Amino acid sequence: MKVGFIGLGQMGAGMATSLLKAGHDVTVYNRTRSKTDELVKRGAVPASRIADACGGDAVITMLANDAAVESTAYGDQGLLASLRKGAVHISSSTISVALSERLTADHAAAGQRFIAAPVFGRPDVAAAGELAVVAAGSKETIADVTPVLDAIGRRTFVIADQPKAANLVKLSGNFLIASVIESLGEAIALVGKGGIDRKQYLEMLTSTLFDCPVYKTYGKLIVEGKFEPAGFAAPLGYKDIRLTLAAAEDLRVPMPFASLLRDRFLTLLAHGGDALDWSAVGRLAARDSGKA
Amino acid sequence: MKVGFIGLGQMGAGMATSLLKAGHDVTVYNRTRSKTDELVKRGAVPASRIADACGGDAVITMLANDAAVESTAYGDQGLLASLRKGAVHISSSTISVALSERLTADHAAAGQRFIAAPVFGRPDVAAAGELAVVAAGSKETIADVTPVLDAIGRRTFVIADQPKAANLVKLSGNFLIASVIESLGEAIALVGKGGIDRKQYLEMLTSTLFDCPVYKTYGKLIVEGKFEPAGFAAPLGYKDIRLTLAAAEDLRVPMPFASLLRDRFLTLLAHGGDALDWSAVGRLAARDSGKA
Amino acid sequence: MKVGFIGLGQMGAGMATSLLKAGHDVTVYNRTRSKTDELVKRGAVPASRIADACGGDAVITMLANDAAVESTAYGDQGLLASLRKGAVHISSSTISVALSERLTADHAAAGQRFIAAPVFGRPDVAAAGELAVVAAGSKETIADVTPVLDAIGRRTFVIADQPKAANLVKLSGNFLIASVIESLGEAIALVGKGGIDRKQYLEMLTSTLFDCPVYKTYGKLIVEGKFEPAGFAAPLGYKDIRLTLAAAEDLRVPMPFASLLRDRFLTLLAHGGDALDWSAVGRLAARDSGKA
Amino acid sequence: MKVGFIGLGQMGAGMATSLLKAGHDVTVYNRTRSKTDELVKRGAVPASRIADACGGDAVITMLANDAAVESTAYGDQGLLASLRKGAVHISSSTISVALSERLTADHAAAGQRFIAAPVFGRPDVAAAGELAVVAAGSKETIADVTPVLDAIGRRTFVIADQPKAANLVKLSGNFLIASVIESLGEAIALVGKGGIDRKQYLEMLTSTLFDCPVYKTYGKLIVEGKFEPAGFAAPLGYKDIRLTLAAAEDLRVPMPFASLLRDRFLTLLAHGGDALDWSAVGRLAARDSGKA
Repeated sequence: MKVGFIGLGQMGAGMATSLLKAGHDVTVYNRTRSKTDELVKRGAVPASRIADACGGDAVITMLANDAAVESTAYGDQGLLASLRKGAVHISSSTISVALSERLTADHAAAGQRFIAAPVFGRPDVAAAGELAVVAAGSKETIADVTPVLDAIGRRTFVIADQPKAANLVKLSGNFLIASVIESLGEAIALVGKGGIDRKQYLEMLTSTLFDCPVYKTYGKLIVEGKFEPAGFAAPLGYKDIRLTLAAAEDLRVPMPFASLLRDRFLTLLAHGGDALDWSAVGRLAARDSGKA
Repeated sequence: MKVGFIGLGQMGAGMATSLLKAGHDVTVYNRTRSKTDELVKRGAVPASRIADACGGDAVITMLANDAAVESTAYGDQGLLASLRKGAVHISSSTISVALSERLTADHAAAGQRFIAAPVFGRPDVAAAGELAVVAAGSKETIADVTPVLDAIGRRTFVIADQPKAANLVKLSGNFLIASVIESLGEAIALVGKGGIDRKQYLEMLTSTLFDCPVYKTYGKLIVEGKFEPAGFAAPLGYKDIRLTLAAAEDLRVPMPFASLLRDRFLTLLAHGGDALDWSAVGRLAARDSGKA
Repeated sequence: MKVGFIGLGQMGAGMATSLLKAGHDVTVYNRTRSKTDELVKRGAVPASRIADACGGDAVITMLANDAAVESTAYGDQGLLASLRKGAVHISSSTISVALSERLTADHAAAGQRFIAAPVFGRPDVAAAGELAVVAAGSKETIADVTPVLDAIGRRTFVIADQPKAANLVKLSGNFLIASVIESLGEAIALVGKGGIDRKQYLEMLTSTLFDCPVYKTYGKLIVEGKFEPAGFAAPLGYKDIRLTLAAAEDLRVPMPFASLLRDRFLTLLAHGGDALDWSAVGRLAARDSGKA
Repeated sequence: MKVGFIGLGQMGAGMATSLLKAGHDVTVYNRTRSKTDELVKRGAVPASRIADACGGDAVITMLANDAAVESTAYGDQGLLASLRKGAVHISSSTISVALSERLTADHAAAGQRFIAAPVFGRPDVAAAGELAVVAAGSKETIADVTPVLDAIGRRTFVIADQPKAANLVKLSGNFLIASVIESLGEAIALVGKGGIDRKQYLEMLTSTLFDCPVYKTYGKLIVEGKFEPAGFAAPLGYKDIRLTLAAAEDLRVPMPFASLLRDRFLTLLAHGGDALDWSAVGRLAARDSGKA
């Protein structure tokens, strides 16, 4: 398929590479132009304006936050102005439920199609084309872009007809991961202060009840205290907890763990954690225990 | 080996059965005598007093709480009075760090040996002899009882020289599981109120980042709302969170998630949840959202 | 002085009455026209459009939330379009720090003046002209409208040159009151379940260390369980906690009590508490204890 | 009356002085003997053993915690062994509900009488004889010791027939004060980081809605950051929150603010706060905001 790809951060670059590997015809755009170089070497066509990435069957956006997606979609010569009738905007960014709802309506009004297809996985998983894709939108539209989704992910979960459902699922997933980070952080602070070898402890956990990627990945980062470079930066994690809470407010669902996580991220950021991986939240319990 | 087994609840019965299957010579004791019947049919020798289970190389205790272990160890004709010199008390109960420390000292003073070997796994896993055993104590003692530990578990993790370390690890593990229950409860309440199919949501989670036993087991219980009969009763979960907090107080480690879980269990119990599985905590978020 | 008054809810009606009593020339506007009747009888001039309330030296707005203030200020024939050069917009509503900042800039650009003068006190205190006024803005402007501020309040605290500071102070004050409600609710649930007479308990508290209006007012409401009619409705309390948290996010100040209060309000609203007084939050602890 | 006084810390010394001033015949005992010197100068009789303070109509204990009261009451030649029949043990210490219950039963069994009469007020208030006394126990016994209670307090609140009720009320009162400390701490951190003068802010609060001793006393300490010497040391505040939570567990009352306060004190103590006044908890919000 002929697709545009907008947003070549760590995740986006890996996803675009996967599309090229799968044989798609890919036009890439990034605000900082130099980030397209590597992909152009691999066969991508560089676009100097967003509109130039909008000539094909679909455009994928993989951007940092609501503001970036908003300006990309609604700006002069943005997606709404540039996509042809029937073309599909595949939004893989982790955005608010509210913006997803708005994009659904506005693309429909413009005769275009919109699906939300956020992904789970860190940069290395993206580069391997092994992401988990959570897609929501009209069944027909999703079917039409299946070759694209198959290229970026190991598996696609079609979760609902309304695109915004996929965004809610993605936010809830990031909330679950953040809960793993915090709970591991507290447990590791406890056993560590109790004199137990933290590495061995983690090995025990992850070879028994907690034998899954999330505990392995984040447990290792917390035990090693290695939060730079960030695979997923703390301000992004904070943003996602805030968007989770915003969705929970609209639905009137009190989420005490999420509230607590919000305060944790705020504490991390207030102490200069902007450049750290979000797993640095897992060190706050140790810090509060006087053993940072 | 010739071993005694004290405490034939759901977990203990399975563990004793595994010992018999492995060819050990097992004497069983339970306060409510009738619980020994099934095991006697499978070849166990029934004991009518605790002292009668103390004649062999080792005795395993698998009891509900500190009080039960205390009376079993310190009572008239209890373990301390009855075990022969050099015999090993293997404590598999989830007890406080403080009691473990005390037992270590008192068994040593009596010329006996003590190790802590708490286990991870629910009743069905115990019956299959597939538990994860976390052992701590003198290396030599652990080596001497390895045939016993191998019979009840799939794998034994030797974590430290001080028995109490295994108890701290076990408590921290139950805290981690309770955190999974609460976080899943909040996430499921959120997406459920957002109109997403909760079963499909769980399937997505557990086939991707959360592909591990804990999420599968507890996610299913929460989604189905099936909390009876209890595999692990709420008052026991509550007890473990309290013991975790007590250990954390002694070590001066603030654990905000654990504090919150304590309140959750208290709320559950205040509403008559004594007979429910501890995963019923995972329904409180939905209840608070007005959609029980 | 010749002043307009916009927003005749329970608080606004009392404040406008105080202005009339003090001899000011008052023009009143309310979206639901009938609410002006009582004040017209007392000598106020009714306005049928916002613009008609903008002909004097100053306009006071006392509205429910940001949206209401925004439409009043920025709408066609709103304050910005209608106030004459040099006239003062006195904003007494509890609004966000962000909106206050925006109004400061936009009124200045329009050659008008703006101060924030939120108030503390419930409807009966407003009717008595005994409110505490927290004012912020240019010293000269505040001096010019002092006769107005003196009419509505018992005392005016001039807190800073930037209007938004008064809004932050007002939000923080409502957070403190909500903290009193929650802490009293927990304490009363505890001693009540412990068999102590709750009325006598409150009397003891409020005649010793807690001998101040807030504890008396809210303690009484909680002990009597009398949450209707609402003096200050739960959705407004919820809004203020959210605005407090929003300001705290911008300033990067983690506020764990405020986070917890947010969840409390969310729980109250999810259970149909929209029409109750915000002190109904003080009954949640008793409810969680199984004794509603 | 002829009374013994045991425990001459900051609070006890003031209370004993008040008894002397009121003309009572006072025998004083303190573990560290030198603390009696000042009182002996004022007319007290020094006792070198607890038993020597037990010869009169009543003995007041004002000690730091359960352990101190337990050893004073139950030790060899302690109160139970030394008080004559019908003499009254007046327990003014802040102790657990459980210990109060035990003392009630054991003094009765020994033919002695027991009331709980904890007090509210800091050292300066104790020295002035202006404490608030919360008494519980048999009406007759309380009447018999009224001259003593009147000497130490400005007013006595008789709250129930069961002594333990007074202990529950005292604990709940300290919980309420700690809630004031935390909520003020968060509010002051917020407005302080927002550029508002913290002293002026506090003055505004305490001359309006929060015009009561608790807000004035603790607000001043927090704003000035003056936590040494401790009027009431952080470990004692921590102890009281723990005893509150223990009572709340027995009564099955979830208290989320109290849980959070427990973590706050734990954080303070983990960072070496043992010698600070408990109001130092009110600086943690500022610390978490990166502006200690």
